[in-house]
Amino acid sequence: MIESVEVIGARGRVGRAVSARLAECGLVPSGRRSDVVLLCVPDRAIAEVAAGIEPGPWVAHVSGGTPLAALAPHVRRFSLHPLQSFTLDRGAEQLDGAWAAVSGESDDALAVATSLAEVLGLRPFTLADERRALYHAGAAIASNYLVTLRRAAGELLAGAEVPPEALDPLMRRVIENGFQLTGPIERGDWETVERHRAAIAEHAPELLESYDALARLTRVEVDQGAPA
Amino acid sequence: MIESVEVIGARGRVGRAVSARLAECGLVPSGRRSDVVLLCVPDRAIAEVAAGIEPGPWVAHVSGGTPLAALAPHVRRFSLHPLQSFTLDRGAEQLDGAWAAVSGESDDALAVATSLAEVLGLRPFTLADERRALYHAGAAIASNYLVTLRRAAGELLAGAEVPPEALDPLMRRVIENGFQLTGPIERGDWETVERHRAAIAEHAPELLESYDALARLTRVEVDQGAPA
Repeated sequence: MIESVEVIGARGRVGRAVSARLAECGLVPSGRRSDVVLLCVPDRAIAEVAAGIEPGPWVAHVSGGTPLAALAPHVRRFSLHPLQSFTLDRGAEQLDGAWAAVSGESDDALAVATSLAEVLGLRPFTLADERRALYHAGAAIASNYLVTLRRAAGELLAGAEVPPEALDPLMRRVIENGFQLTGPIERGDWETVERHRAAIAEHAPELLESYDALARLTRVEVDQGAPA
Repeated sequence: MIESVEVIGARGRVGRAVSARLAECGLVPSGRRSDVVLLCVPDRAIAEVAAGIEPGPWVAHVSGGTPLAALAPHVRRFSLHPLQSFTLDRGAEQLDGAWAAVSGESDDALAVATSLAEVLGLRPFTLADERRALYHAGAAIASNYLVTLRRAAGELLAGAEVPPEALDPLMRRVIENGFQLTGPIERGDWETVERHRAAIAEHAPELLESYDALARLTRVEVDQGAPA
């Protein structure tokens, strides 16, 4: 179905992994026009780069937060967002096992997007273009705020003069065990929560707002007894 | 050095894994008095259970948040807190690779605690008893709020009608890649942040407070350029 894919932005984090996988599969530009032009450029550059491509091939981007309209004037268009964190230090194997959001405005567009996701080793699901902001907010919370949590928690351990990296096996296991909630809020132990608040207020007061907001949110989840 | 350990609370999450490992190592109670009595009971029960033990052996608890004073009247006492999330579905191997905070009031106490941690397959570090609340707050943020983040993010994905479990390979990889911050806040893309806020305000307003608090905290970390 797809025989050749041209990647624009192949030196970026996503573009590099995607290009490596396409090369493994032989889906590289031949002399002829490519079936798909895949923009792996920064979000803010998508509209300008798309506008400069001669209409004809499928034109797609790999952004989670950017609407399909940014690909104008192309109408043969889709998006394919690998829900993964990429680094330049690794290769195509970064795609394995990750999911991908595919969006398109026609059955054809969705079929091409889905097929390309599968070729890349991704597990595609369909994302409605108008639900993109909600999806992208969720992805950002899960990945970016995970980094923020680790830094905040690491700061507290450093303040207690113990190694912050001791948190990493714990965090990996919480994910591995399917995100079971334990700890003081789960068991309604508000004395311990108050001891945490006092220690944070003394040693890292800039963390207190987040500690409290997440405590309230955790309590709501406990009261609802509801994992998502 | 330690030849026998009696575990009280061997049917709990931590007690079960610890007992399994001690059995593997042959460090089980013989007919004689045990060298160590290890309390793997709920935090709120530690003081009462400790008070009921006849003085003589080392008496210890496995709580992160409970001070050594809870082990009164014993003076041969220490604590050993495995920094790990345990489940009843798994065995002794849950201890492998995890760190453990050991606290004691004498060189002897720290030596026994460290030795026991190593026997259990843990990587011990010393935690000063008076820094315990700060340490425990960090551990709770890293583990409990990780669950809260995943539930919040999963709720947004469910709202966008895509599978919440698609977040899991992403979160695992963020940890694996050493918590590198990417995303809109890292690149100062406040338009995207505002789109997130609008989508959250419409679909899951109870999450907005935490989104905003973590956004501010993330921004502070970006401005400081400082991983912990």
